[in-house]
Amino acid sequence: MKVIKVGGGGGIDYEAFCKDLSTHQDFVLVHGGSALLNEVSQKLGHPPRFVTSVSGHESRFTDRRTLELFNMVYAGHTNKMIVEHLQRLGVNAVGLSGLDVRLVEGRQKTALKVIENGKKVVLRGDHSGKIQTINAKLLHLLLDNGYVPVLTPPAISTEGVAINVDGDRFAGQVAVALQAQVLLLLSNVPGLLKTLADEASLIAHIAYEDIDTYIEQVAKGRMKKKLLGAKEALSGGVNKVVLGDARGAGPVSAALAEQGTVIG
Amino acid sequence: MKVIKVGGGGGIDYEAFCKDLSTHQDFVLVHGGSALLNEVSQKLGHPPRFVTSVSGHESRFTDRRTLELFNMVYAGHTNKMIVEHLQRLGVNAVGLSGLDVRLVEGRQKTALKVIENGKKVVLRGDHSGKIQTINAKLLHLLLDNGYVPVLTPPAISTEGVAINVDGDRFAGQVAVALQAQVLLLLSNVPGLLKTLADEASLIAHIAYEDIDTYIEQVAKGRMKKKLLGAKEALSGGVNKVVLGDARGAGPVSAALAEQGTVIG
Repeated sequence: MKVIKVGGGGGIDYEAFCKDLSTHQDFVLVHGGSALLNEVSQKLGHPPRFVTSVSGHESRFTDRRTLELFNMVYAGHTNKMIVEHLQRLGVNAVGLSGLDVRLVEGRQKTALKVIENGKKVVLRGDHSGKIQTINAKLLHLLLDNGYVPVLTPPAISTEGVAINVDGDRFAGQVAVALQAQVLLLLSNVPGLLKTLADEASLIAHIAYEDIDTYIEQVAKGRMKKKLLGAKEALSGGVNKVVLGDARGAGPVSAALAEQGTVIG
Repeated sequence: MKVIKVGGGGGIDYEAFCKDLSTHQDFVLVHGGSALLNEVSQKLGHPPRFVTSVSGHESRFTDRRTLELFNMVYAGHTNKMIVEHLQRLGVNAVGLSGLDVRLVEGRQKTALKVIENGKKVVLRGDHSGKIQTINAKLLHLLLDNGYVPVLTPPAISTEGVAINVDGDRFAGQVAVALQAQVLLLLSNVPGLLKTLADEASLIAHIAYEDIDTYIEQVAKGRMKKKLLGAKEALSGGVNKVVLGDARGAGPVSAALAEQGTVIG
């Protein structure tokens, strides 16, 4: 079993991605949608707001309206577009969010402690959270019957409220729940880069025990979350994580052949 | 088994609707989303376009961009909002579109023959179609395992292209496929009205053999499609169809108690 995450960061040709994906078997797909969400939010008069937590992680402030737009873009546009591509390619895809059958359950953080203009500020009304449980029963049922799950955030809180959770960590937890051998985290960069602007500065391998060092000293922005997702997956029993490029020809095949940053 | 369709025509309190729905068992829900789609399309600079076919039916002209917006609103916003409400109420809902596992398959009509300014015109590039097959295997699998399907258009063509299909006829075909006893078509009117502006002119009962007459002589606009959906359901083995009001208190209970227009 492979869990494959394709990002939503822009610059990805989903049709080409799906074409390569369809040559593989025995996988669950997880996807993002952040670039399109930013665009749609802007156009609908509710521009995105990003905040930096006191622990240094950047995240989207997700008020209720943002969560509605999130559902529209992730579960509506991108999920169904991928399902349509895969169906056309003969893959019997079924798209689900973490809300459906409480597939991905977590704890809502209603108050966010963030740094704004150098000061600690508490923001209320956030609909984001931390994943606690993957309810994998339906995933097994689907896989046993030959269906291919295509999954997307949001998740759902124990109280039944939709919560924005990080897509890479979502994929990592799904990989753990399904005891996947490998987790691919594919986005619009070749992997973890020593120098952000230099795609040739790719770090080819990171040992499990060095992940924290890379999170603290090398990774910036979204890459911190990817390494965190990788760490959680590996500590949960997944054998290998590859951070790869979703943009080129044959992106899934390339990452399975260890092009990118191999972790573990 | 009951198949319940809740419209998307505006004026419906989905939270109240779900609250009543959650007191019932053994159902599949189908929903619409047209009012919100009109609003979002307008705001995103791609205003809705409605056309009248040569046979007198009004429908949405669905170019590719409209279909993307359709997915956002129906499969993203409304489907997941309903799933969230139901999960909070203890109903183990799972939201799917007709694209997923090719649940609802049909034939794409790429060219539409319409009447514009009194003349017959052929419009190309339409992504709508006619339902041919319900692939009910996954629905049975979900129902047998205690999950409650929440379904929405679009459907998918045999060639794997997403197509806009009428939600009431979608619900009718699902009811036939599941051999449901009853189909409820709930919207923002009390049922079929003799006089459109007069909610007291409700027609309480229509016999199966009179449906065509009502389609031709009484029903206007969307009501024609509802009667067509009802006719298809009844001819496929469903015992009873009720056109009811989704807006009041206890709308599902009321329609099950035959408040509205009972057909069959």
